[in-house]
Amino acid sequence: MTSPTQALAEELIRRPSVTPDDAGCQDLLAARLAPLGFRIERLRFGQVDNLWARRGTTHPVVCFAGHTDVVPPGPREAWRSDPFTPTVHEAHLYGRGAADMKTSLAAFITAIERFLEAHPDSAGSIALLITSDEEGAAVDGTVKVVDMLAARGETLDYCVVGEPTAVARTGDMIKNGRRGSLSGRLVVKGIQGHVAYPQLAKNPIHLVAPAIAELAATQWDHGNDYFPPTTFQISNIHGGTGATNVIPASVEILFNFRFSTASTVDSLKQQVHAILDRHSLEYELTWECSGQPFLTPRGELVAAVAEAIRAVTGLEPELSTTGGTSDGRFIARICPQVVEVGPPNATIHKVNECVPLADIETLSAIYTGILERLLCR
Amino acid sequence: MTSPTQALAEELIRRPSVTPDDAGCQDLLAARLAPLGFRIERLRFGQVDNLWARRGTTHPVVCFAGHTDVVPPGPREAWRSDPFTPTVHEAHLYGRGAADMKTSLAAFITAIERFLEAHPDSAGSIALLITSDEEGAAVDGTVKVVDMLAARGETLDYCVVGEPTAVARTGDMIKNGRRGSLSGRLVVKGIQGHVAYPQLAKNPIHLVAPAIAELAATQWDHGNDYFPPTTFQISNIHGGTGATNVIPASVEILFNFRFSTASTVDSLKQQVHAILDRHSLEYELTWECSGQPFLTPRGELVAAVAEAIRAVTGLEPELSTTGGTSDGRFIARICPQVVEVGPPNATIHKVNECVPLADIETLSAIYTGILERLLCR
Ligand SMILES: [Zn+2]
Ligand SMILES: [Zn+2]
Repeated sequence: MTSPTQALAEELIRRPSVTPDDAGCQDLLAARLAPLGFRIERLRFGQVDNLWARRGTTHPVVCFAGHTDVVPPGPREAWRSDPFTPTVHEAHLYGRGAADMKTSLAAFITAIERFLEAHPDSAGSIALLITSDEEGAAVDGTVKVVDMLAARGETLDYCVVGEPTAVARTGDMIKNGRRGSLSGRLVVKGIQGHVAYPQLAKNPIHLVAPAIAELAATQWDHGNDYFPPTTFQISNIHGGTGATNVIPASVEILFNFRFSTASTVDSLKQQVHAILDRHSLEYELTWECSGQPFLTPRGELVAAVAEAIRAVTGLEPELSTTGGTSDGRFIARICPQVVEVGPPNATIHKVNECVPLADIETLSAIYTGILERLLCR
Repeated sequence: MTSPTQALAEELIRRPSVTPDDAGCQDLLAARLAPLGFRIERLRFGQVDNLWARRGTTHPVVCFAGHTDVVPPGPREAWRSDPFTPTVHEAHLYGRGAADMKTSLAAFITAIERFLEAHPDSAGSIALLITSDEEGAAVDGTVKVVDMLAARGETLDYCVVGEPTAVARTGDMIKNGRRGSLSGRLVVKGIQGHVAYPQLAKNPIHLVAPAIAELAATQWDHGNDYFPPTTFQISNIHGGTGATNVIPASVEILFNFRFSTASTVDSLKQQVHAILDRHSLEYELTWECSGQPFLTPRGELVAAVAEAIRAVTGLEPELSTTGGTSDGRFIARICPQVVEVGPPNATIHKVNECVPLADIETLSAIYTGILERLLCR
């Protein structure tokens, strides 16, 4: 007997929504939300379908956020069953998106349905922010919907992102923040010449070495209660054409910061420039910030999520801010409290992606518990 | 009216002796030397023709050394006349090898002929060490002839190498030594990982940077009266695959020393290893010494060469030890005094290689003057 959440997850998996294609997933969600009294807005930016749905006009606003797009499945032969045919095997539901994050989307819907059945006249609002551009460029998705909401002055109070955050069992870990990511491309210039006549040249590798040593040894910040200290890593260094008798004209260095809320993009840029300038380097430096950090300290939302998890699973969830970036960084601009909680992430972006059957209704029950704790006090 | 030295230089240029091919040049030289009383040994090692010729059995032994091979001429169209057809144009003799170093070979012969005509019973010995493997691998040429001479206990007292050493006019500069060249390929090892999880990785670029800074700042020696201090230059550094989120497993560095006689290969190797070990690096380091330094301090040979130049040209020759390596480094093993003196080197290894007509007999006269000063005292 297939449970309601599993049944909806299977319907979603059957739609091959390879990023940025929504493939009708949002139609399915909208068809379930409209009868519950949600006002639905379909927002297409570029090639990307987005959905904003809200029930109620008052605060607090509890929002569930997620994405319908999935990463490409790779070769069919590598899968034990077709990636877009939901298949149960050894107590797991298999299919591309089973864990990242169509089960979470289904659990949003069934959790809301169950909550509204019990509390038809609850205070506040429930909302959903769904995109089909999280796995791709992430430029016409959540960030654009947030831009629109911000433009019309709409703010959220609590947001639960359905990203797969669990390690072994749903509820064992939640993400209450993410580090930011700031990248730089540094080109240090010298003067090309022959190794036999170094007095006529300027060796950029020699010139930059003490600066690299200082950058690598710098303590950028001390982190804080939620974040480890900011880290700096050089991923690439290239200088020289292969000729062993030529001093190269320049050396190129690619580096990346994973930074906590104890630093800012500007503070890191200033420190790097100060070090390079102190070493009297002639250089070009271009920056790219691919994600601001966000943090939701312990408070109402973290407490509600943790209590719901404890009540449903008996687990004590660990708070974490590790891993890559997520759409949470965009939502944080209009929502003071954002937490990510979803199923185990061991198989995401891999072949034979799956979710344990036992975790599917558990996740829906956790989401219902969160609504109850935030809207029924 | 073509002078005797120019006539012989033209005959040599007409033979297309692209390295390591002698193309009959040594036959020509041997045919001129045999009637003068030289004992000729033709020594073929691998693909390389070498000639050892000596007149006399006593010391001092004055040796002229050089090579019949030339670098490839490149495309015929780039030359104003055929590179293997000696051509006079605007008071210069054009052809591949005109400056490097067939004019010097011709001048050796005519200088010896003129000297023996005036001093048929001079004391000591005159020798020629000629190879066709100076411009190529230089493994079956001068070094092998020197090995053979050393094996049979034959030593030289003075050697004049005919390499083109002049800047503007023949006699303005002589080389009384050359720096050595020692190269290294250093691979520093780390542990590959993701930039978001540096605690699980070891970044070899970060680890090696302080060591590079120290290597670049090290004073290896202070040089001496004849040599500038030893120099160290990194020509290449490469780490990273292009992926901007991966800490690379290793970084490769190619470097080169140009070293004076104030250091040795062993002293430099020891200093580099000490620096790398002090920085606790895990590394592989392979060495290649492509040339030992040699030096002939001011003494009988330098004085004889300088006096001959002064007498013939009125120029005061500058002593120099700069530039690349030469076969002088091999000869120095069996000869305490080695000096290089030849025509201007502005066009060597280029298209339209040439030598000023006025310098051709000048060079022969300088060589005769050297013989007179060393063998007629
Ligand atoms: Zn996801
Ligand atoms: Zn040469």
